[in-house]
Amino acid sequence: MMLTAANHGFMGQALELAGRGLYTTTPNPRVGCVIVREGAVVGTGWHEKTGMPHAEVLALKAAGARARGATLYVNLEPCSHHGRTPPCVDAIRDAGVERVVAAMQDPNPQVAGAGFARLRAAGIAVEHGLMEDEARELNIGFVARMTRGRPWMRVKIAASLDGRTALANGRSQWITGEPARRDGHRWRARACAVLTGFGTVRDDDPQLNVRGVDTPRQPLKIVVDSKFETSPSARVLQGGKTLVVGAVSDAKKIASLKEAGAEVVIIPNDGGKVELFKLMEELARRELNEIHVEAGTKLNGSLLQAGVVDELLVYLAPSLIGDSGRGMFHLPALTELSRSKALKIREVERVGEDLRILARL
Amino acid sequence: MMLTAANHGFMGQALELAGRGLYTTTPNPRVGCVIVREGAVVGTGWHEKTGMPHAEVLALKAAGARARGATLYVNLEPCSHHGRTPPCVDAIRDAGVERVVAAMQDPNPQVAGAGFARLRAAGIAVEHGLMEDEARELNIGFVARMTRGRPWMRVKIAASLDGRTALANGRSQWITGEPARRDGHRWRARACAVLTGFGTVRDDDPQLNVRGVDTPRQPLKIVVDSKFETSPSARVLQGGKTLVVGAVSDAKKIASLKEAGAEVVIIPNDGGKVELFKLMEELARRELNEIHVEAGTKLNGSLLQAGVVDELLVYLAPSLIGDSGRGMFHLPALTELSRSKALKIREVERVGEDLRILARL
Repeated sequence: MMLTAANHGFMGQALELAGRGLYTTTPNPRVGCVIVREGAVVGTGWHEKTGMPHAEVLALKAAGARARGATLYVNLEPCSHHGRTPPCVDAIRDAGVERVVAAMQDPNPQVAGAGFARLRAAGIAVEHGLMEDEARELNIGFVARMTRGRPWMRVKIAASLDGRTALANGRSQWITGEPARRDGHRWRARACAVLTGFGTVRDDDPQLNVRGVDTPRQPLKIVVDSKFETSPSARVLQGGKTLVVGAVSDAKKIASLKEAGAEVVIIPNDGGKVELFKLMEELARRELNEIHVEAGTKLNGSLLQAGVVDELLVYLAPSLIGDSGRGMFHLPALTELSRSKALKIREVERVGEDLRILARL
Repeated sequence: MMLTAANHGFMGQALELAGRGLYTTTPNPRVGCVIVREGAVVGTGWHEKTGMPHAEVLALKAAGARARGATLYVNLEPCSHHGRTPPCVDAIRDAGVERVVAAMQDPNPQVAGAGFARLRAAGIAVEHGLMEDEARELNIGFVARMTRGRPWMRVKIAASLDGRTALANGRSQWITGEPARRDGHRWRARACAVLTGFGTVRDDDPQLNVRGVDTPRQPLKIVVDSKFETSPSARVLQGGKTLVVGAVSDAKKIASLKEAGAEVVIIPNDGGKVELFKLMEELARRELNEIHVEAGTKLNGSLLQAGVVDELLVYLAPSLIGDSGRGMFHLPALTELSRSKALKIREVERVGEDLRILARL
């Protein structure tokens, strides 16, 4: 496939449109669409949320008769099945579109390519792979859920430059500055759920919701709390939906959590703790794409050891707490450096006086 | 003072020339000089090392008769005293230079401004303050020693992303990659001394010299070793000069260290440890400008508490060691976050797969 700079420009525009749904499309992917005829954009659209029209349909509607003979750019393979809305491929065919350029296939291995096949069968030229990396990044959680049956997990950590997330006495408010905290809320906003542990609920009593970000949707709140020790008056249970995940069948505690409005599930492992890998599979079944974790040293370490962490979002403050402070991850002692968990640093940004480091496992 | 872009260009050139002496001028400052006549550079010079001609003298020699009526750009106030070489101000006057633009005054409060005064008395126009920040940075150690009687101290730390400098068993080779280690040697090379503690000598047996950098000069090696426990066969004592600083008068151990080629000084505090602030004053008396520290958690913490640390040079590797690993700084536990040591992040760079963060106290 030979693609010109113009193709990149139109796909970039489609991705930008798709990004407008960053906080809202879940469980659907973020999708944007640009229709071009004779080098001019004749229609655009983006998907806002489930139940609302797909990006392609909105763009076709905007283009009207000008869609005939046009090229349609979209960051994801158009759907070919009857879901909550009719298949986009039919609408594209009916509008007389001549060529479809997609950034990537549908990541669901059960259906990948079916949309393209239907388009080709209708005589429409199809190309894909343009800006595929950017497209995957935008829907990284959707892709993860579709391809491996687990959400994408991003662990947010705020620490001093010497890697300490709290004082020995547990105090952690606030290590980083206001701009970093605000930035953190934007990452919460794009997630399907914000997950923490009982220790953090007990020590910090966080609300765990999104604040200071213009979003109509609040992520689900999830508390990993093996023994269901969360107080029914904890702030995390107030406003919005909260899922408390434990490992014991303590009828009384469960009843009082439900009374307080929480949903409760029990996913135990052999050690009386929550089986974290299974929890992630359960969250995928519930159609959660991206999980944003803000937990303490212990749960962070357990998640890492369970192999369910994909990415670290680390804010480093320009301060030193010293080695009595709490660390980022509680892990068993290593005897060889070669056993340390390897990461790849993807992005480094200054946010206010702090540094933000995005690293992947 | 109104200064044009051209002035900045010439001073930038002078600073670049000065930088050529980064590894060699100590205890002298790094100085470069550019002589400009009718908009054209007619002579340049830079100071290489003590005993060799000053930058101004070399630039005047290169300019010859063309220095008459010219403007001389230099990053430091020209000297007015007879030191190891005759005063530059006399040479500038004799060459008929019409105007001198300096980045900064001589930082020595005893002499600051005397060179400018001598030039003005000779009818030469003098301006200073152009690119002063850059000029101070280049000679940060010289400025520190002259203005406060202590060298500039830079503490180098290599750690995992979670702030761990070694495994619990002490292993620390290698946390960062080859490019970061090579970069670290360049920072060693510009320092007057590389300082470590007995713990590191015992655990890692480092050479503490500069390797893989094109430099004719090796920094002094300094071991802080309160009880003079360093083995006479330690690699740090081989090749180059080593100063072992202790706190006890153990004649036998001192004799065997001297036998091994080390110089020994005793600078005790009340607790039987080395009095670190006094040690720094002693190092300034010895004309050391920049001290590069590569030590363990304990000595790093003691230096920080002694208030002698100016800057951190932190390499963060894309790895996680977990909270059993050793930290960066051993410090007493804090009870309030507001008591944490505040830093200012100056620079962040990627070096190979690692991050390099330069932060100041």
